[in-house]
Amino acid sequence: MKTLNVGDYLLNRLHQAGIRHLFGVPGDYNLQFLDSVIDHPDIAWVGCANELNAAYAADGYGRCNGAAALLTTFGVGELSAINGIAGSYAEYVPVIHIVGAPASAAQRQGDCVHHSLGDGDFRHFLRMAQEVSAAAAVLTVDNAVAEIDRVIDEALRQHRPGYLLLAVDVAAADVTLPAERSPEAPVVHACAAAAFAAAAERLLAPAQRVALLADFLAGRWQLQASLAHLRELRAIPAATLLMGKGVLNEQQPGYVGTYAAEGSTAAVRAAIEETDVTICAGVRFTDTLTAGFTQQLPAERLIDLQPFHATVAGETFAPLSMAQALTALLPIYQRHCAHWHTAPPALYEETAPTAAAVISQQAFWQAMQRFLQPGDIILADQGTAAFGAAALRLPQGAELIVQPLWGSIGYTLPATFGAQTAQPDRRVILIIGDGSAQLTIQELGSIQRDGLQPIIFLLNNDGYTVERAIHGAEQRYNDIARWNWTALPQAMSLQCSAQSWRISETAQLEGVLALLAQQRCLSLIEVVMDKQDLPPLLRKVTAALHQRNSRTV
Amino acid sequence: MKTLNVGDYLLNRLHQAGIRHLFGVPGDYNLQFLDSVIDHPDIAWVGCANELNAAYAADGYGRCNGAAALLTTFGVGELSAINGIAGSYAEYVPVIHIVGAPASAAQRQGDCVHHSLGDGDFRHFLRMAQEVSAAAAVLTVDNAVAEIDRVIDEALRQHRPGYLLLAVDVAAADVTLPAERSPEAPVVHACAAAAFAAAAERLLAPAQRVALLADFLAGRWQLQASLAHLRELRAIPAATLLMGKGVLNEQQPGYVGTYAAEGSTAAVRAAIEETDVTICAGVRFTDTLTAGFTQQLPAERLIDLQPFHATVAGETFAPLSMAQALTALLPIYQRHCAHWHTAPPALYEETAPTAAAVISQQAFWQAMQRFLQPGDIILADQGTAAFGAAALRLPQGAELIVQPLWGSIGYTLPATFGAQTAQPDRRVILIIGDGSAQLTIQELGSIQRDGLQPIIFLLNNDGYTVERAIHGAEQRYNDIARWNWTALPQAMSLQCSAQSWRISETAQLEGVLALLAQQRCLSLIEVVMDKQDLPPLLRKVTAALHQRNSRTV
Repeated sequence: MKTLNVGDYLLNRLHQAGIRHLFGVPGDYNLQFLDSVIDHPDIAWVGCANELNAAYAADGYGRCNGAAALLTTFGVGELSAINGIAGSYAEYVPVIHIVGAPASAAQRQGDCVHHSLGDGDFRHFLRMAQEVSAAAAVLTVDNAVAEIDRVIDEALRQHRPGYLLLAVDVAAADVTLPAERSPEAPVVHACAAAAFAAAAERLLAPAQRVALLADFLAGRWQLQASLAHLRELRAIPAATLLMGKGVLNEQQPGYVGTYAAEGSTAAVRAAIEETDVTICAGVRFTDTLTAGFTQQLPAERLIDLQPFHATVAGETFAPLSMAQALTALLPIYQRHCAHWHTAPPALYEETAPTAAAVISQQAFWQAMQRFLQPGDIILADQGTAAFGAAALRLPQGAELIVQPLWGSIGYTLPATFGAQTAQPDRRVILIIGDGSAQLTIQELGSIQRDGLQPIIFLLNNDGYTVERAIHGAEQRYNDIARWNWTALPQAMSLQCSAQSWRISETAQLEGVLALLAQQRCLSLIEVVMDKQDLPPLLRKVTAALHQRNSRTV
Repeated sequence: MKTLNVGDYLLNRLHQAGIRHLFGVPGDYNLQFLDSVIDHPDIAWVGCANELNAAYAADGYGRCNGAAALLTTFGVGELSAINGIAGSYAEYVPVIHIVGAPASAAQRQGDCVHHSLGDGDFRHFLRMAQEVSAAAAVLTVDNAVAEIDRVIDEALRQHRPGYLLLAVDVAAADVTLPAERSPEAPVVHACAAAAFAAAAERLLAPAQRVALLADFLAGRWQLQASLAHLRELRAIPAATLLMGKGVLNEQQPGYVGTYAAEGSTAAVRAAIEETDVTICAGVRFTDTLTAGFTQQLPAERLIDLQPFHATVAGETFAPLSMAQALTALLPIYQRHCAHWHTAPPALYEETAPTAAAVISQQAFWQAMQRFLQPGDIILADQGTAAFGAAALRLPQGAELIVQPLWGSIGYTLPATFGAQTAQPDRRVILIIGDGSAQLTIQELGSIQRDGLQPIIFLLNNDGYTVERAIHGAEQRYNDIARWNWTALPQAMSLQCSAQSWRISETAQLEGVLALLAQQRCLSLIEVVMDKQDLPPLLRKVTAALHQRNSRTV
């Protein structure tokens, strides 16, 4: 039996979960634990400018790395971060949130210490965290080993945040370790899998028109390769929702585009909805991604794979993981897919290049399409950026990070910091609006401090264009303070090596993109656009949202 | 009976509560309500760069205005703001937090709409808000009038936040108003007041050494004038804790300084602790303000006035408001105070002027002392700034805003925006460290957009000096990204009219202060200081904190 302190044990467990960086902000209740972090050989500390940004950065890291960790201090720090954690909960990203807390004795006595509400109750913030955590624990010397294991395991299993409250004295206390745990073999539910397979085959055997609709949960459970393998057998029509864009290889035959129900192009909609069977893998239908729940996919011709269960024509099979369900589908696929229609070859819509001198949304996204390279990580903020990105055809191995369900504007700038930290060798491209970037701009300083080199396209359309599209197109509340964007990299670093451009013409954009393709350097390109210009998908979606919000009880 | 819509009714009630500005960030669930705000004759919309900053700005406004209001959107917006609301709860500032929510029908159906967790439960964030609110309500068309009244009244009564969840359709619905409410007469509890007076007189009649210790709760319940009136009768030794600094007129005879228990100067400590009776008005003993609860004030010689009760020598009298208790004390004071010792005339400590060329904490605060003018509003962030400000002697009518219990760094920059919005004609001075300012810097853009002219002293001591003092003086986690501070005003405004200076010598500081005394202009003065230099009080306090955090269970 070995002994080490609780802080070190926790760091070892994070590392075993594949985590190599800890994001956060120091505070006096976590400083001693931070000493352990600094001394740890396998975990690097990544200080952020504030806690919400740190949570966003951890989320972005988690999406590129499988899991992430965040450190804040009691009360002020954890509550600043909680919106980021809620986003990780809503969109299934396992972020282990460690909160440094006052000494156990002070908590027991109910002392009126700083960062508490002054009422002697030290569980307010735990209760708040429990609303957005897969598991939560108040660590003590006695329970630390078991509870750290439980919370991390459960967070990884559910792909959602875990919360650990770590008092200063507990972090420093020695614990005795049990013998090395042997990893648990995955549980196979043969019975549910067999019943699922039988039902699926009954549906698929006589089918001619079969389509595949994949979404983000298939990506979170890392089923990209399994899906690609199925699609190699037969190039049936395949699409993703915006949130899951990148889960399917968009260069593989059969890919038809982004499905957005009524917001889709007619061809994409027909390919996914006009079928005998549609196989959904990890799909969640969200209002903004379906133009207000306009999908036409009746249960009787649906095979729906979810993380812990599947349904076939309305009948549910559980417990059944998505991986097990896909494994069960493979032989059925092999037996019958020769009869299924393949997708028409050039279904993916190409728009005519624009000749407009002033940059339009259309011209910008056409230029982006040409600029993208295999393996790029693209982050698009929840505004014109995310909806414009829906129309891209991603190169091989490229990933798109968007946050359309939680939809917290500003998220992607710190998430870019996290993604580039996780994948320092890949090209990371951020596309964000001016309104969104103002929420979280300070992380531009952290990006520079760490010498990272993402490419940032700042779409300056003079305020909250996504909201103008929904309501109040000319209302003052959709205006923002006007910034001198290209001056920001210099202001946020004493050793600035960033390149900045302010451009408003299509030809300028082409010139800058040609430069960027040749070199690697932190770049900020302010792209000035008309404040009422929208990508086509956003125009359709916001019309639907406006109608829903205006509906009376 | 008149009808108007719920949004307008709410705005009318905010205005009746003395609120003239609504801080916040637009989101698609609050845009229709924002139309009502823009059209309202008495409430002005103040858009902020992000929601946490908006909550801080509302808090700063509330401290200068008596009450404040904040508007955010469901989920993402309200959770971003919740740390600011928690600060208002801990430190007793009535901020009415209005949250725009999805349509009632979508909530009833449990739709997977954006800004929800996607699980159909629309009460997660309400439950979180309830942990930090005096009152909370989910508004419906039927309950809106009664619940708006209840939540606002309760927030004002408790001087703490109130939460109103306002679905888009409810905001737009017409309500029928009841007849004009007649204001309720304040309840007088004659019985408790008489018993309190008798007990207080038994203690005070034979006393010779009587002292007054006032704190922030006396300020929140606006008892500054009552306390000044008592002190005019007899100049007994009087002090405040840092959190309540400014509640007592520091130019009035008898004022001895800031009381911080073991952290005080010997003279202040003796004046408050070595007494026959100490009268405490609105006092809360917090760890950081008492060098770790080292106050020596035994209950048997204490008269302790709290918002809703009082205790005399350990006996509690309730219900009894602080105002009623002070009224009851006045005749006792008049009968006996002639026998009480007055404070020695020049007890307030003057330090010798420093001749050091490089700016030290000591030199900076001496210069500040000379720079202050009557009526100034000073905000000092929870780091070296707040602890340095403790040693100031405030001019007549000057106010100090600090947040030492909640202690959320970065708070004061947006709070400066709020304070200056509430009091456009007064001079507002912010003193903040570089580490703190990075958390909330984007509100510098909003300050400029609105043409406000606070004076900002940015103490650049290369990281989190307050934390270095507690732990890890040379640890990397206390470093921050190094910014080019004086370039920020230009970067955050296209029409920048700010003045900026970067200074590191005492003589330069004197020169800039001489200029600032003559003109009114948004000013940013970056004051470069040694990263280990501390105000004396902070040195004492952090030693105590370090000891508490290191203590084992």
